[in-house]
Amino acid sequence: MHQEQPVITHLINGQPVDGGSRSADVFNPATGKVGEQVRLADRATVESAIAAAQAAFPAWRNTPPLKRARVMSRFKELLEQHADTICRLITDEHGKVLADSLGELQRGIENVEYASYAPELLKGEHSRNVGPGIDAWSEFQALGVCAGITPFNFPAMVPLWMWPMAVACGNTFILKPSERDPSSTLFIAQLAQDAGLPPGVLNVVNGDKEAVDTLLTDPRVQAISFVGSTPVAEYIYSTGTKHGKRVQALGGAKNHAVVMPDADIDNAVTALMGAAFGSCGERCMAIPLVVAVGDATADAVREKLVAEMARMKIGSGREAGCDMGPLVTKAHLDKVRGYVDQGVEEGAELVVDGRSLTVAGHEAGYFLGPCLFDRVTPGMRIYEEEIFGPVLGIVRVDSLQAAMAMIDAHEYGNGTCIFTRDGETARHFTDHILVGMVGVNVPLPVPVAYHSFGGWKRSLFGDLNAYGPDAVRFYTRRKQITQRWPSAGVREGAVFSFPSSK
Amino acid sequence: MHQEQPVITHLINGQPVDGGSRSADVFNPATGKVGEQVRLADRATVESAIAAAQAAFPAWRNTPPLKRARVMSRFKELLEQHADTICRLITDEHGKVLADSLGELQRGIENVEYASYAPELLKGEHSRNVGPGIDAWSEFQALGVCAGITPFNFPAMVPLWMWPMAVACGNTFILKPSERDPSSTLFIAQLAQDAGLPPGVLNVVNGDKEAVDTLLTDPRVQAISFVGSTPVAEYIYSTGTKHGKRVQALGGAKNHAVVMPDADIDNAVTALMGAAFGSCGERCMAIPLVVAVGDATADAVREKLVAEMARMKIGSGREAGCDMGPLVTKAHLDKVRGYVDQGVEEGAELVVDGRSLTVAGHEAGYFLGPCLFDRVTPGMRIYEEEIFGPVLGIVRVDSLQAAMAMIDAHEYGNGTCIFTRDGETARHFTDHILVGMVGVNVPLPVPVAYHSFGGWKRSLFGDLNAYGPDAVRFYTRRKQITQRWPSAGVREGAVFSFPSSK
Amino acid sequence: MHQEQPVITHLINGQPVDGGSRSADVFNPATGKVGEQVRLADRATVESAIAAAQAAFPAWRNTPPLKRARVMSRFKELLEQHADTICRLITDEHGKVLADSLGELQRGIENVEYASYAPELLKGEHSRNVGPGIDAWSEFQALGVCAGITPFNFPAMVPLWMWPMAVACGNTFILKPSERDPSSTLFIAQLAQDAGLPPGVLNVVNGDKEAVDTLLTDPRVQAISFVGSTPVAEYIYSTGTKHGKRVQALGGAKNHAVVMPDADIDNAVTALMGAAFGSCGERCMAIPLVVAVGDATADAVREKLVAEMARMKIGSGREAGCDMGPLVTKAHLDKVRGYVDQGVEEGAELVVDGRSLTVAGHEAGYFLGPCLFDRVTPGMRIYEEEIFGPVLGIVRVDSLQAAMAMIDAHEYGNGTCIFTRDGETARHFTDHILVGMVGVNVPLPVPVAYHSFGGWKRSLFGDLNAYGPDAVRFYTRRKQITQRWPSAGVREGAVFSFPSSK
Amino acid sequence: MHQEQPVITHLINGQPVDGGSRSADVFNPATGKVGEQVRLADRATVESAIAAAQAAFPAWRNTPPLKRARVMSRFKELLEQHADTICRLITDEHGKVLADSLGELQRGIENVEYASYAPELLKGEHSRNVGPGIDAWSEFQALGVCAGITPFNFPAMVPLWMWPMAVACGNTFILKPSERDPSSTLFIAQLAQDAGLPPGVLNVVNGDKEAVDTLLTDPRVQAISFVGSTPVAEYIYSTGTKHGKRVQALGGAKNHAVVMPDADIDNAVTALMGAAFGSCGERCMAIPLVVAVGDATADAVREKLVAEMARMKIGSGREAGCDMGPLVTKAHLDKVRGYVDQGVEEGAELVVDGRSLTVAGHEAGYFLGPCLFDRVTPGMRIYEEEIFGPVLGIVRVDSLQAAMAMIDAHEYGNGTCIFTRDGETARHFTDHILVGMVGVNVPLPVPVAYHSFGGWKRSLFGDLNAYGPDAVRFYTRRKQITQRWPSAGVREGAVFSFPSSK
Repeated sequence: MHQEQPVITHLINGQPVDGGSRSADVFNPATGKVGEQVRLADRATVESAIAAAQAAFPAWRNTPPLKRARVMSRFKELLEQHADTICRLITDEHGKVLADSLGELQRGIENVEYASYAPELLKGEHSRNVGPGIDAWSEFQALGVCAGITPFNFPAMVPLWMWPMAVACGNTFILKPSERDPSSTLFIAQLAQDAGLPPGVLNVVNGDKEAVDTLLTDPRVQAISFVGSTPVAEYIYSTGTKHGKRVQALGGAKNHAVVMPDADIDNAVTALMGAAFGSCGERCMAIPLVVAVGDATADAVREKLVAEMARMKIGSGREAGCDMGPLVTKAHLDKVRGYVDQGVEEGAELVVDGRSLTVAGHEAGYFLGPCLFDRVTPGMRIYEEEIFGPVLGIVRVDSLQAAMAMIDAHEYGNGTCIFTRDGETARHFTDHILVGMVGVNVPLPVPVAYHSFGGWKRSLFGDLNAYGPDAVRFYTRRKQITQRWPSAGVREGAVFSFPSSK
Repeated sequence: MHQEQPVITHLINGQPVDGGSRSADVFNPATGKVGEQVRLADRATVESAIAAAQAAFPAWRNTPPLKRARVMSRFKELLEQHADTICRLITDEHGKVLADSLGELQRGIENVEYASYAPELLKGEHSRNVGPGIDAWSEFQALGVCAGITPFNFPAMVPLWMWPMAVACGNTFILKPSERDPSSTLFIAQLAQDAGLPPGVLNVVNGDKEAVDTLLTDPRVQAISFVGSTPVAEYIYSTGTKHGKRVQALGGAKNHAVVMPDADIDNAVTALMGAAFGSCGERCMAIPLVVAVGDATADAVREKLVAEMARMKIGSGREAGCDMGPLVTKAHLDKVRGYVDQGVEEGAELVVDGRSLTVAGHEAGYFLGPCLFDRVTPGMRIYEEEIFGPVLGIVRVDSLQAAMAMIDAHEYGNGTCIFTRDGETARHFTDHILVGMVGVNVPLPVPVAYHSFGGWKRSLFGDLNAYGPDAVRFYTRRKQITQRWPSAGVREGAVFSFPSSK
Repeated sequence: MHQEQPVITHLINGQPVDGGSRSADVFNPATGKVGEQVRLADRATVESAIAAAQAAFPAWRNTPPLKRARVMSRFKELLEQHADTICRLITDEHGKVLADSLGELQRGIENVEYASYAPELLKGEHSRNVGPGIDAWSEFQALGVCAGITPFNFPAMVPLWMWPMAVACGNTFILKPSERDPSSTLFIAQLAQDAGLPPGVLNVVNGDKEAVDTLLTDPRVQAISFVGSTPVAEYIYSTGTKHGKRVQALGGAKNHAVVMPDADIDNAVTALMGAAFGSCGERCMAIPLVVAVGDATADAVREKLVAEMARMKIGSGREAGCDMGPLVTKAHLDKVRGYVDQGVEEGAELVVDGRSLTVAGHEAGYFLGPCLFDRVTPGMRIYEEEIFGPVLGIVRVDSLQAAMAMIDAHEYGNGTCIFTRDGETARHFTDHILVGMVGVNVPLPVPVAYHSFGGWKRSLFGDLNAYGPDAVRFYTRRKQITQRWPSAGVREGAVFSFPSSK
Repeated sequence: MHQEQPVITHLINGQPVDGGSRSADVFNPATGKVGEQVRLADRATVESAIAAAQAAFPAWRNTPPLKRARVMSRFKELLEQHADTICRLITDEHGKVLADSLGELQRGIENVEYASYAPELLKGEHSRNVGPGIDAWSEFQALGVCAGITPFNFPAMVPLWMWPMAVACGNTFILKPSERDPSSTLFIAQLAQDAGLPPGVLNVVNGDKEAVDTLLTDPRVQAISFVGSTPVAEYIYSTGTKHGKRVQALGGAKNHAVVMPDADIDNAVTALMGAAFGSCGERCMAIPLVVAVGDATADAVREKLVAEMARMKIGSGREAGCDMGPLVTKAHLDKVRGYVDQGVEEGAELVVDGRSLTVAGHEAGYFLGPCLFDRVTPGMRIYEEEIFGPVLGIVRVDSLQAAMAMIDAHEYGNGTCIFTRDGETARHFTDHILVGMVGVNVPLPVPVAYHSFGGWKRSLFGDLNAYGPDAVRFYTRRKQITQRWPSAGVREGAVFSFPSSK
């Protein structure tokens, strides 16, 4: 009776493969309608992907780094050519506006670009004469089969943080993207095949906990990269490491923006608008908290924020001119709305209330208008927890010292930023704050692709960060060689008569 | 009635501290007598050490790297001045001959030396104009309180792999050395205080599982370095990571030396003698297995080994001219002797039997003569397990390919070496073998201090190796800063009238 | 009456410009006919190019490195797309066979690829707390206007060693290619414009000594890169440095290949054939001398060389299946032939004489058959001087020591190689030989693009080599910044009332 | 009849050697009396030093870097132990106060410390699989004999910028210190012998132009480092390079300090006092010009300077509590005084006149009181030329833009600094100013020893800076090795029967 949706399957050994008996709905959050179904891989399917990756490894690790890098260069060209398609796939399944999808893709492309520097990045260190006639050098060799487990909020970018560098280093890879918006991820993986990536080097399995647990426990998988929430990150880290793997697990965030009295307030507020409400706040580098130093600062920031928020246009991500689209799922919408209710109960002042928003023509979409709280304080759940929605809170403090103590006491330490013109203030803040990525007048201090991404405290488990130089070290094993040669008589000439007598 | 032994206590906040109600005997393995007692720290004592380290951290991390490095330089001078004392302490508690103690200390000193390069090693990467007017750079900041748990076999060297670099990077440290031979470790820690290390920067707690578990679970401890057996390494890695820490845990080894038909056999055998029997084989880089390629090679190696072994002198480590001292404890002696019995049962050919050795004047010492097995094969326990004693086995294979397959199939992948004169053979072996430290005509390819130490497979859990460049990254957290400055009008001159109006 | 040839002009500020009153003929060496005329720039023309480069500099140095790098990526794609055209231009003016032209272009493309890693390569070093509260870092800033003067033998590759990295670092550039084969160089420069290089960033002036001298003496030119013969390199180095510029000047070569008795002789000879006769020996990394250790080795090498040489096919570079084309000019043909005559007079044994070769249908082409001398000795002009033609000489020595002494005594030290299987021989040779680029069983040890190119002794003047990491340092000036911030009261809160009073 | 002064000779091959027939007086500038005579080496003497260095080279370059580094560590300890003696020698011949001598020595010691990191600094880059089965790596090998020519103003520090790193890299060295104050230099060289530097590795020749020209032209000398005035630097650079050597020649300076209206004026003035008058201004990093932005700034700076200058105590460098000692020679005193006269003639306002100073008990000493000019302008000789004396000038400008244009137009570009609290101002200044070493609120931005020292424009000729990472590259030659191994049958087992048949 009812219409069959198309089913999104897996990419294993260079081929689309349908494996597993369970499926999940993939919604378009702007309409609330199911677009497709995605197959959820069972253990056997994941194991077949691991087997494909294992089989592809020996030839790929022996391929010179320059050749592997060139596949990344061609892949980058294809990503640029197909940017429109990719962005539409992101927007239709995630909800973010097309400009945000493009921004995400650009960041992903920069990571592919960095992976194409592999011949430079893989250089080891060579020491002649560590002792008389003894040389030593290091090689950074591929690990084997690596896996990545990625979140819904950046279906293009976060996978591109991981597998391009992993494969440029000579590894093979299993990617398990979010089952909520897998289409752009799979489309991109197909482009990599088109660019010349041999079958089995990159495999994509869609799935849920069964797939994840297979990856975490299979002894053939050497390394796990994860981005998601902190409780899951912690599970991934402890389970993966318990099975002897190296793991980098990036978790949640609650990034504070400090605004100092000497800041350029207009610039700061403009910056904060994008940082708070871009992609509906569904970013681990979003700014959900503004810490204003001094009431005068807080009042000025609040006034300008209210004015700017009133000008925002919310609608389908496909529509031109929209600033913000819907949240990703109905469940998530309910959760975020619940946080707003909670904030009111906890006594924060709800200055702008986006709960009543409806978008004409998209009444079933998962929309929430931007919300602004003032007088948020530590201890409130809207202060402590990651909301991942378009909800910004103003926290008022008397001094930078108080602001920094508050930030340092928070569970998370992913990103933070400070708005000031004063060199000394910025230097003190960046030196001492217990946060991994720090912006000075930069609201989203996401490191460029040739640096590395990672938070502190409970925002990251592991010792090497995502992408950039750290990723090279994460996706390789150091091999250390020490070499001395005994005389064979060849140099001294003792065997000169030897070859001719052969 | 009976004489009280002196009690070895802890070093906390720069002071000797006695904490805990339990103690253990420390024996002199050459005599079998108890020399001292060592106090075993209880949880409260370890926590007081952690508190001291935590308190010392802020000032120490703010101390310029050059000043921290200079403490290491002075410390190095003191180690050189007190080398004799340290070596006697090692030999009296561990048993190894004085020359081995000095070799160990020298290696440790090289690590102190490398830590003194901290100003160079801590440089971050700076990028101007990552976007217009935006700069980005990385800093490698200290973690806070770090801990090290070290084995009995290198009481001076292995601690010096860890804490000098950790503190040179600005961390503070808790060291828990082996309770079997703690005296040299503590003496060295005292020298570090004399060199100017502030109280609380390095703390030493003696103890056993209670101390270890406190370190593994206390949330103030940020990182754990461990060297020991694989089962414990695995426990340390999974427990420490489960508690959110970064961990590097180095475990067991079973290092194979491949001897090719074209090798310089005399050189190879001389090299193997030291590698197999030095420090009674109680080294994770010892060579307990010789893989001879071709029977002719095996016969030649065996013949020369038997002759060399007959010339060895075994006695107290304090005695001049001895090649080998006793094993570390009675229990370990029994275990190693049990392996020899086991090898005979399993069908290996016991060519040289050291079980009947007695050392005149040291009848109660834990001595075992060097043993040589031939025709050892995979599957035998003496092939598979780490014996950590003076027991060398010859394995016969037909080809390099067979030798490499065997090595790759072994659980451990710490070190290996190949004896050959042929460039191509060496290159193929070093490129493909699944082992972390590889020697070419170098029997103990322990990397020099300016490279890093670590095995593959179940010989190391974690992603960053011990000492050298990897240790810098392990003992620091990357902080990534992105900076842009808004105009303050200062540059353009708008506020020129301003200062005079103050 | 006579037909006007097309005139090749200059590329200045993104436009074709005709400047100068003199011209030179450009020949097709396979036919001996003049194909075009090339305009020789006068001082005013070169100065206008310098002015264009100077004007383009401020905007280009402010362009973020990533954007500059991306121009190089697009440029690389265009080079790949237009490879056929470029190769035909090279072959028609230089004479080398199309396969050699393609090989040259590939190497050039690798240099463009490396230049596209600029964001990674330009990272400076950042040190926090060089003193309390004081930070220091280095930046590698662009120099301004740089110039390159390149030889006829690699009209595509050698320019691509220089300007792509120079402009990726933020400089602007004047290229003066060889006036004998400028067309491929200019075509490539045009592709760079198409790839998005702004006008004036790269300028090409054709010319001779007048152009060169203008570049060497104009104070606006900051740096000179040169590749050519040693006497000219020396002139460039001393004149450029006298005018306060930084200069890297690569000169001549006479590369020796040592063949040891244990070498794989078949492989060695195959390798030597290409190294001696590829591109008619018109390469600074060609092998014109084989040093055979032991007479048996020499006899075996000679015998196989004679057999291989008999199989060579010589003809127009455009013709499929040819191994070797003509020499570049009539004058050069006469010079090389003169060296062969000279060798006979000096007493070397002319084993294979290529002087009588004619190529049917190309009787006016500048062809010379491959020549082989045996018993060449130091002191002969054919031993001491760079012939730059298809003339290979065998030198017989008794030991590696004699071979190395001979190589070290030679004026040049560009490249060398050794054929052996023995690790110790190779290690001794590479450690001690006074030559900059050393091959072990690699006849043309031209470093890959991510390493750097340069000889020793009179083969290179300057301290930084061509391309690779050294080029980054050559084309940038270190700027060292030391920074401390005084308190502005902003952090401490003294001015909290200040902004609202504005 | 007259008393013979002691004669300072040379250090050649580890021995004091008297060579040359000419001598020069060495004065004590505080008393105006001749303390000693220094022998001026003739060509033959310098050549014997070169021969000694040449002979010492092979063994020294083969000494493992770690061993060479350890000589530097021991040397550092000796410098610390003998600091008092060294400082007295500096003060007695140069005149600077003891605190300045100690400051200089400390900076020198830091360079020795950095040289002791040689094992880390000399690492080359290793690339496996640049092609299938082909590896490549770089080595940074010693050059051979290097030479350093150093100025009078830092007789301890500047030589220690050069030779410790040169010898740590495996070179041997000829140092020609200033003939005006050679005693501390020689004393230090002797300490290096005591630390274990083998004879001939470091040689010191005293001398003048004859010695310099010998070093510049002798073909055995591979590299020249020079610090001095720009005309001589230019001569050294063009002469040395003409003779095929690599040269780094550091010349004069005229460093501007910009004071912005928002600066902390008290801090700025305190900083400027030391920067202008420390060591009598005889420093290439001294600040002789303050560029005040805005008249109010200028007035405030001037007022505070006058007050501080009135408090200065001038006297013998040996006397406790003195801020400033005498100038180095009578001739230099006259020259500096002449500049003050000149400034008055040129129309600058002489606010503080130090010309009439006499120091009781030291009437024959070369003393000049501190001088302050206001309203100095470009075009005046006291603006354009390096005075190298205690003469500070205030330049008044209206904007930062004007200040920067003025600095950029000056012939020299050694150091500069800016005083401001504003991040944007500092960033704009450091990015764009055409000066090599830039301070932000740091008056003497001399890079720490682990960074490198060098100016722009006519302050430095060459492409690699002094000390730090650049010095490693300057004192080494890149050797690039590319390696491939042919099969010898050893690996495949074809020769298994071979060894036994031997």
